[in-house]
Amino acid sequence: MDDAHLIETRLDGRELFKGHFLHAFRDTVRLPDGRSTVREYVVHPGAVMIIPLLVDENGQVRVVLERQYRYPVKQVMVEFPAGKLDAGEDILACAQRELLEETGYRATGWARAGVLHPVISYSTEFIEVWFARGLSLGERRLDEGEFLDVFTATPTELLLWCFEGRVTDAKTLTGALWLQNVLAGAWELDWQPPVVPAGGR
Amino acid sequence: MDDAHLIETRLDGRELFKGHFLHAFRDTVRLPDGRSTVREYVVHPGAVMIIPLLVDENGQVRVVLERQYRYPVKQVMVEFPAGKLDAGEDILACAQRELLEETGYRATGWARAGVLHPVISYSTEFIEVWFARGLSLGERRLDEGEFLDVFTATPTELLLWCFEGRVTDAKTLTGALWLQNVLAGAWELDWQPPVVPAGGR
Repeated sequence: MDDAHLIETRLDGRELFKGHFLHAFRDTVRLPDGRSTVREYVVHPGAVMIIPLLVDENGQVRVVLERQYRYPVKQVMVEFPAGKLDAGEDILACAQRELLEETGYRATGWARAGVLHPVISYSTEFIEVWFARGLSLGERRLDEGEFLDVFTATPTELLLWCFEGRVTDAKTLTGALWLQNVLAGAWELDWQPPVVPAGGR
Repeated sequence: MDDAHLIETRLDGRELFKGHFLHAFRDTVRLPDGRSTVREYVVHPGAVMIIPLLVDENGQVRVVLERQYRYPVKQVMVEFPAGKLDAGEDILACAQRELLEETGYRATGWARAGVLHPVISYSTEFIEVWFARGLSLGERRLDEGEFLDVFTATPTELLLWCFEGRVTDAKTLTGALWLQNVLAGAWELDWQPPVVPAGGR
């Protein structure tokens, strides 16, 4: 499809701000009609989210979730485990590291579902979405200054919370879409051959 | 539930940067263990997304979507119509305004689905999710510097694109979760009494 009538091209740009975490830029861009405007955005290294599948003693599938206070929205949020990519880090290695650090779980099976973009109007951030199965529980190793609860829920519970407004985190809502369709057999995952669980850093 | 072991409290803060669009702050917060750290985040006025339902001549439900170039991610994205709240603007009025401006559609029926938070780690942004039905097509009035295509698709097509990775915008993926469950009868909407369509600004 020819998208020339939509595409903006960079004319110039500069760093707006580099904080401890936020790194912002302002670019001047040429619009499709030839005029120009500015675009301000945050540069982000990308992240990975894990949908960890457990099977309980009754054969019921459960997912591992977290409760974490998120300062910008001033709420404790229910979320799938997730974390930022370290510089140069392999995405699956990041998924394995974050799952272990935040929840204490190692997984023997991994499948990439897809990618999501949380905030396309002002951040470069992408979040890779991975499923994990074959979980075994070890000891979690939270980053300094990280405080979160780990718990499990059935997919039915998670979907109810999405409907009721108890889950409002967009990445987790996207995870619920994947979970619902994978469990229904509508969306097939491509599970990778089992790997030796990563030992973390 | 007692969340004292999770909650961070503001000790101090200052504006980091105020651009044309981005407005960033850095707060010093007290962590649950009594130590302190900094949190950097963008303040956002909030937004609304519309899931507009059409019924075609064969009785098939279709949704109205947009294709728009998003500069930070350097891609043309498939999205549900959405836009930022003006200062003091009523959320439903914003939904009606954005639907009309971006797509040319007015709706007689509106139902609030819920809210999503696109980026809980570094923005205050929330996006209200509304369904619209009883659509009639008028003339769209894009903002200056706004370029986008409007098209329609069946829910089956949209869900396939979510699975295939052709839809990666988190708000639209969340919209697909709502759409799938509403059309399946699993999630009920509370449709408001019909209103006189808004005339825009």
